[in-house]
Amino acid sequence: MQNKNFKRKKIKLPVVTELVDGILAGNFTALSKGITLCESKRPEDRKLANDLVKACLPHSGNSIRIGITGVPGVGKSTFIESFGIYLIEKQNKKVAVLAVDPSSQLSKGSILGDKTRMNNLSVHPKAFIRPSPSSGSLGGVTHHSRESIILCEAAGFDTIIVETVGVGQSEIEVKEMTDFFLLLMLAGAGDELQGIKRGIMEMADGMLINKADGENLLNAKRAKREYQNALHLFPLAESGSSPKVEICSALESSNLEKAWSLLENYLTITNQNGYFERQRQEQLKAWFNKSIQEQVNLSLFGNKEIKEKISILEQQVEQRNISPTEAAEQVFDYFKTSLQ
Amino acid sequence: MQNKNFKRKKIKLPVVTELVDGILAGNFTALSKGITLCESKRPEDRKLANDLVKACLPHSGNSIRIGITGVPGVGKSTFIESFGIYLIEKQNKKVAVLAVDPSSQLSKGSILGDKTRMNNLSVHPKAFIRPSPSSGSLGGVTHHSRESIILCEAAGFDTIIVETVGVGQSEIEVKEMTDFFLLLMLAGAGDELQGIKRGIMEMADGMLINKADGENLLNAKRAKREYQNALHLFPLAESGSSPKVEICSALESSNLEKAWSLLENYLTITNQNGYFERQRQEQLKAWFNKSIQEQVNLSLFGNKEIKEKISILEQQVEQRNISPTEAAEQVFDYFKTSLQ
Repeated sequence: MQNKNFKRKKIKLPVVTELVDGILAGNFTALSKGITLCESKRPEDRKLANDLVKACLPHSGNSIRIGITGVPGVGKSTFIESFGIYLIEKQNKKVAVLAVDPSSQLSKGSILGDKTRMNNLSVHPKAFIRPSPSSGSLGGVTHHSRESIILCEAAGFDTIIVETVGVGQSEIEVKEMTDFFLLLMLAGAGDELQGIKRGIMEMADGMLINKADGENLLNAKRAKREYQNALHLFPLAESGSSPKVEICSALESSNLEKAWSLLENYLTITNQNGYFERQRQEQLKAWFNKSIQEQVNLSLFGNKEIKEKISILEQQVEQRNISPTEAAEQVFDYFKTSLQ
Repeated sequence: MQNKNFKRKKIKLPVVTELVDGILAGNFTALSKGITLCESKRPEDRKLANDLVKACLPHSGNSIRIGITGVPGVGKSTFIESFGIYLIEKQNKKVAVLAVDPSSQLSKGSILGDKTRMNNLSVHPKAFIRPSPSSGSLGGVTHHSRESIILCEAAGFDTIIVETVGVGQSEIEVKEMTDFFLLLMLAGAGDELQGIKRGIMEMADGMLINKADGENLLNAKRAKREYQNALHLFPLAESGSSPKVEICSALESSNLEKAWSLLENYLTITNQNGYFERQRQEQLKAWFNKSIQEQVNLSLFGNKEIKEKISILEQQVEQRNISPTEAAEQVFDYFKTSLQ
């Protein structure tokens, strides 16, 4: 066993240029350390992380970023495993898999919390799997994930799969950092049963009905028609590429080329009409704006004295001794003073 | 015609104590001026508005706050008119009607933009109708509406009707500032057709099927049963009062007592189990937290120099000359300097 302090020192003091060199050379250990650095909340690490991302930025962007969502039970882990292998072996890709879970510290049964369940992919030399960061925090997970994408691209991965974990916000977060948002569905389960909100369907650039195998194949084919009809009722997609539905079986690794065709078709259209690049620029701007908010929130709600001040004022607000607006102004004045 | 400057002076320099006296005496003009003051974005007005709200706060709270939502065409304006008159004449209430539209500067056909359409209610001495504020802004409309509620209550109104205007956010905003959230529906139109999101149904404390008159009466009765069945599938309401469905016709002013019974039933239960007061306290805390955010956003995005800085950095971000996170840190540093 290593001495803990020694170990920490070893991890916490990487020379950024060394990390950059390692990442650009496609070294997995350097990439892992780089992502860990980006996930750190320590101010001194943030500075190093910024330098790292800045150095990687010119080498990033040359990839397809695929967001994947779907309710628990739809077979996300199996699909990512099978599709990842397909991409590597049939499309000659290098695949990185990331998970975004802004909701909590619980792993909620995410396959990425348990890397070992992606047996084949996790040991493949052309695949890099990064489990979801273990700590949800104020102003954190989102831009760490975006930074992780940059680092993976700089390390030469040309296909980035970002998995939504948890519920609620994560779909929006992932949609905002990927080029193509894929919704995994099951046949035979009504929308209600699957817990799919209409809003999620509207976000999808493509839909894939998984577990289309054995006795379920006919069901899957029928569901494909039904979903395709439903999608016709939706407003025209901003991308110019109307979402298509395909079926596949991740378990049997069958029809994975259909999943690929969804993606390929989308890429052809959006590269031609310029949407692909436009969306990326919009995403960079959105990331920027979000980071500003996160910066402010961190220095506001992350400050112990301000938090105490807020908690005292909160009691006065509850007792109606002060108006909420006035109390907020007091917090803000206090915040301004704290910055000086 | 008055000289414009003179007029402005007259409105912009009210002595707060005079306004307070006027509002507490139930004077409509003072109430209107008070609300205008709260809606003002000028820093000097904000200070006065705070004093005003603070003075009114001890006289507030003694009311029922009813949020009303429903898609365009459901007859919200007619319902508020009829129900308002019913509350005044049959339940001896004093009714104030406010509109919340955080989305835009367009009136979007809001009846409250056109006060004259509420013919009977708008001229009633026991009713006060306040059209929706004309300007949507950074950090504004929401807490103005909350402040308006306080002022109306201090002026003696014991029933505050808050109407959602526009789409999207407004339902959540209104839900967060009212005691009872009423969803108006139509019979015969499917959920999809009505554009009612499942989430809105889950927010409702009661549902009312309007236009239950003439040939539509049977439809309305059937819809009532169907919605009531659907509501049974929902998780138990936090309020302890499971939402009920009733039918009414605002046009014929029939069955308005059913609408009242929905409300009365809810109030009895939530007063007994303490939810009513607990929810109000939670809402005050939420208002407080929101106000903090709004304060920060206003001083951040409302500052001309910072906005210019952001716009320059945005271009660099788009051109990938700087990482979004690093650009955000520069904005934040600039922000800190601007506060000193």
